[in-house]
Amino acid sequence: MKREIYLETTPLNEAIEQWLRRLESQGFLKTFPGEKVMVPESLGRITAEPVAARLSSPSYHSSAMDGYAVNYQETFGASETSPKKLKLGEQAVYVDTGDPMPDGFNAVIMIEEVNLIKGSSGLASGESPRRQGVKGQEEIKYIEIVEPATPWQNVRVIGEDIVATEIILPENHRIMPVDIGAMLAGGYVDINVRRKPKVVIIPTGTEIVDPGTNLKKGDIIEYNSRVLGSLVSEWGGEAVRFRIVPDNLDELKDAILEAHNAGDMVIINAGASSGSEDFTSKAINETGEIIFHGVSIKPGKPVMAGIVRDKPVLGIPGYPVSAFITFNLFAKPVIYRWQGIEMDPPEILQAVLSRQAASILGQEEFLRVKIGKVEDKFIATPVSRGAGVLMSLVRADGFVRIPAMSEGIGAGSAVNVELLRTKNEIENTIVCIGSHDNALDLLANSLKKKYPRLSLSSAHVGSMGGLMALKKREAHIAGTHLLDEETGEYNVSSIKRLLPDRKIVLVNLVYREQGLLVPKGNPKNVKGFEDLTREDVVFINRQTGAGTRLLTDKHLREFRIKPEDVKGYEREEYTHMGVASAVLTGIADTGLAILASANALGLDFVPVAKERYDLAIPIEFYDTDMIKALLSIIREDNEFRNMVVDLGGYDISDMGKVMYDSGV
Amino acid sequence: MKREIYLETTPLNEAIEQWLRRLESQGFLKTFPGEKVMVPESLGRITAEPVAARLSSPSYHSSAMDGYAVNYQETFGASETSPKKLKLGEQAVYVDTGDPMPDGFNAVIMIEEVNLIKGSSGLASGESPRRQGVKGQEEIKYIEIVEPATPWQNVRVIGEDIVATEIILPENHRIMPVDIGAMLAGGYVDINVRRKPKVVIIPTGTEIVDPGTNLKKGDIIEYNSRVLGSLVSEWGGEAVRFRIVPDNLDELKDAILEAHNAGDMVIINAGASSGSEDFTSKAINETGEIIFHGVSIKPGKPVMAGIVRDKPVLGIPGYPVSAFITFNLFAKPVIYRWQGIEMDPPEILQAVLSRQAASILGQEEFLRVKIGKVEDKFIATPVSRGAGVLMSLVRADGFVRIPAMSEGIGAGSAVNVELLRTKNEIENTIVCIGSHDNALDLLANSLKKKYPRLSLSSAHVGSMGGLMALKKREAHIAGTHLLDEETGEYNVSSIKRLLPDRKIVLVNLVYREQGLLVPKGNPKNVKGFEDLTREDVVFINRQTGAGTRLLTDKHLREFRIKPEDVKGYEREEYTHMGVASAVLTGIADTGLAILASANALGLDFVPVAKERYDLAIPIEFYDTDMIKALLSIIREDNEFRNMVVDLGGYDISDMGKVMYDSGV
Repeated sequence: MKREIYLETTPLNEAIEQWLRRLESQGFLKTFPGEKVMVPESLGRITAEPVAARLSSPSYHSSAMDGYAVNYQETFGASETSPKKLKLGEQAVYVDTGDPMPDGFNAVIMIEEVNLIKGSSGLASGESPRRQGVKGQEEIKYIEIVEPATPWQNVRVIGEDIVATEIILPENHRIMPVDIGAMLAGGYVDINVRRKPKVVIIPTGTEIVDPGTNLKKGDIIEYNSRVLGSLVSEWGGEAVRFRIVPDNLDELKDAILEAHNAGDMVIINAGASSGSEDFTSKAINETGEIIFHGVSIKPGKPVMAGIVRDKPVLGIPGYPVSAFITFNLFAKPVIYRWQGIEMDPPEILQAVLSRQAASILGQEEFLRVKIGKVEDKFIATPVSRGAGVLMSLVRADGFVRIPAMSEGIGAGSAVNVELLRTKNEIENTIVCIGSHDNALDLLANSLKKKYPRLSLSSAHVGSMGGLMALKKREAHIAGTHLLDEETGEYNVSSIKRLLPDRKIVLVNLVYREQGLLVPKGNPKNVKGFEDLTREDVVFINRQTGAGTRLLTDKHLREFRIKPEDVKGYEREEYTHMGVASAVLTGIADTGLAILASANALGLDFVPVAKERYDLAIPIEFYDTDMIKALLSIIREDNEFRNMVVDLGGYDISDMGKVMYDSGV
Repeated sequence: MKREIYLETTPLNEAIEQWLRRLESQGFLKTFPGEKVMVPESLGRITAEPVAARLSSPSYHSSAMDGYAVNYQETFGASETSPKKLKLGEQAVYVDTGDPMPDGFNAVIMIEEVNLIKGSSGLASGESPRRQGVKGQEEIKYIEIVEPATPWQNVRVIGEDIVATEIILPENHRIMPVDIGAMLAGGYVDINVRRKPKVVIIPTGTEIVDPGTNLKKGDIIEYNSRVLGSLVSEWGGEAVRFRIVPDNLDELKDAILEAHNAGDMVIINAGASSGSEDFTSKAINETGEIIFHGVSIKPGKPVMAGIVRDKPVLGIPGYPVSAFITFNLFAKPVIYRWQGIEMDPPEILQAVLSRQAASILGQEEFLRVKIGKVEDKFIATPVSRGAGVLMSLVRADGFVRIPAMSEGIGAGSAVNVELLRTKNEIENTIVCIGSHDNALDLLANSLKKKYPRLSLSSAHVGSMGGLMALKKREAHIAGTHLLDEETGEYNVSSIKRLLPDRKIVLVNLVYREQGLLVPKGNPKNVKGFEDLTREDVVFINRQTGAGTRLLTDKHLREFRIKPEDVKGYEREEYTHMGVASAVLTGIADTGLAILASANALGLDFVPVAKERYDLAIPIEFYDTDMIKALLSIIREDNEFRNMVVDLGGYDISDMGKVMYDSGV
């Protein structure tokens, strides 16, 4: 028998509309009043009133050039054939750029366009006064001009830039660097900007602890409040983190009321789902009123919104991805409205989905994707969909929304991606799909260090998956370690078979040691594959298509062991680190992976084989700037090469060497 | 005779390359070392080293659901027809989401999928434990399940999110909100980020004064340092404003050396041009070395760069537009390199130039443009090209670069605009071209206040110019006050003549008073047009095509005055405020303009005529959301309507009324 646990599950658009309409109708969405800040401190703030110039700029007629101020009426008739002399000090006065115009003068002749006449003799001098020094200057009595001046030529008249009373900036305008200059020039020292919305975030939960605490089993480091607080800062508000409140109804109610007094909006995180210790909805209900509880989105379903006295309160779910998404959906529009500004619409990129993504009917899903530009197409690949996997957000380039009325999106479909990064960053990302190796993480880091413009994005789908991605033109390079058991050669026969029409360059990254990982001290005394049939040994496998899975199967065949006799054969991990983690945490007793992963987590290692790990690169990418940069790291960056050696179990003697080239 | 004033004028790309190469070769472009900051304070900072997880997250196996922890091996065989009972406390333990898995348990069954059995009687209970309260819970002895559990189902295993040793963020990565969560989850409390580059900006000039000073003639408010400092902040650095240094070589040299000790880069502003009091190049030369002085760009030509001891020094020109452009070109790349990050390329928009822009051969010009999207085309209109007109930057939407080898760009040419605003802002801008009226400024402000998404951009080219802009499809609306002398009707006959094929709706904005502006007290006793022929009266005119110009000419004809008998008839201003400013500052004694402009600057006013000022709106825009929003302000916003009345000289009795509709 199934039970409805949430109070309701409102469709997303309805929930947002209901929320904003309700706040608006009660007068809680009005723009905030202004507060004075000094103009130089106002960058990025929002004007709370129109800024009308108090002064004109320039505030006096001034010379726009280095030259001589004259009265244009006295220059009539000057020409090349009949130059006109003007007496210095009376008819012409030297002015630098910016100098006020002397009274009675109304034009400036550029210094380059006059001849200086010494004494009364009328001798022409080719030098400007500054090159002659003071002594020479004293001798000059006249300037000679060969063209008449026009009225007010080369003069910056009062108000040329800003006329007093002119509106420099409208209300609700975000202040940019040049605006600061214009306000100062217009006579402002301080300026009225919108007060920053203050958001108080209450972390709740008996199990959560502050970062830096020595963790006991069951402790969870509290970090959501810092993610949400950073979002508040980016949106122009100010976040206040409340102390951690344990799961206790009365304490939570007290906290809500205290937070209510301290800010403009209260966020409770979490306790928004329906666990037996969730007091958030009760606490909101008993201090104010719930507007909705439960929205049909994934992740983020348990979100709730309410009003306590005169302020909005949100119950934000505890899973980090749910928290991020629901906070964006329900807090951001309120914070923007208070400031009198509109949210920028998300940047949308058209992409092709590389893998199908099934979705639950009736829930709008926010699918996180990584994007790569391969040839002319943007390829979006879904990353982990777990609401608890924050790294899926750290690594994601954007979201694809799967509508509530859809059961999913097929591979190859065109999708609109709401970007979390700029298109430029995405276009400068090398997409590496295939087998996982720890050296790839170091490579990504060294690439970014030396070429900050570039990124390396790795997806771990196994060697076969990598070659298939090249075939489908979804990746620039593929990491692969596929042994041809007949020839003993790596990768070449697979490339010939899977990519017969493509020209591929195979560049060695490393030789590496594969072996059985076991806990420190090898408590179950695993000596090799022959022990995998033991009743007390649980194995952890890699996914189909992984080179390491093929290596496992090869060894099982050699030992004539049937997969069904290996306990745990059916449980799959996608990376070496996943296998290592499973062994470390007791999910399994052993699994096949590279030495580097054992070293990373302090496990013991039973060597099984040394294998070659190459990067397969289609010739059309091989000479691009991006791949050239990557290869220069592999071939020449000693810091990178040494770091790989330090991981352990690697032989870099062929690192960067072309092992095979199907194109020549 | 012309003289070369600059030391040299290097082409722009050459100057940038020379500058960066020289700094690089001397080791002055290396990324900065790291400094520790607390993780929650690290938003927007740049990682100075790779961040590898110290802890796994989660750090223990935990339940991913509210439900019952079980051992999956004890659930084998459960089905709808043959449910299985598990004893609470022994075979099944209640867990909330996030609770650690009890030892020996390896799967969680969701609470929605179990039946609770009271006592030993086996009676099914339809209620969840939390709804039964403590008393009910005590009675439950078993759970009943109808499906076997799979290993580790609904369990978040250790490291599901982050595996210890995994690289969370690479070096040279700008920290985003979610990254802060991942670092905290990965065991970090503080983090190594790049030290912020510190830029010391020295304002120089005997004539410049701090904002807030009571201005004397010749004083200039110093604001460039605040604009440049704000840019430094936006680029991730820290700006220090040095005290104002007068034009004195020794003081400037001392200032450079003091600034050199206080920061990573020294900016001298200005004194970079060639005026007789410019000491900047000399001061750099005597404390260090000049790399280049003079670059063939406009504006910004006098920029200079040098090295003093081990640090870059820039001499940035004094005109605000020159300062902004050269600082972007020469300081920004250095500040980015120091932080280990790449500059984002400017966003480029393809547009059509509405007016021709001639340019000087041999200088790369940075033409500021306003952009509007009319129908499907982006129209770029050049704004003031004066290097001293900061408002041209405040109002600009972007730059068009006119190459050094070009003499200009013709009207109708396709141009690439480097955007200063987002494309979205531009798409939400109503383009109003035509006659100027002060009420338009208020309208722009009220529109932004009520609809923060929208902007109104006005270009003032006169009534005829506005109708021509509609004809060329370069504007959404045009402000117009063209009197048909035969019929006495406004605007309709001009629209019929100029736009015979277009359907135009004519909406009244105001009736307004035009008159002769004179200084306070009317010192020359101007009584009307008859006084314009007086020897001691200088007139200021409006440009050809302006409705006010036509009004002037009509009155001159009526008084039988020839234009050549009016002193100043040939000097043109483009706006009412321009005329008012000319009268206020003594450039002219009188000019024809609206009463509002006289009131704004405290001038006296000799009434001449009352006229109708309408907005002409093509029917295809009339029903768009943007124009509907604008009309709602005009028709319904009493705050706006009252503000217009307060300007003086306006009759709003027909404001918003449709005066003519050629489409019906």
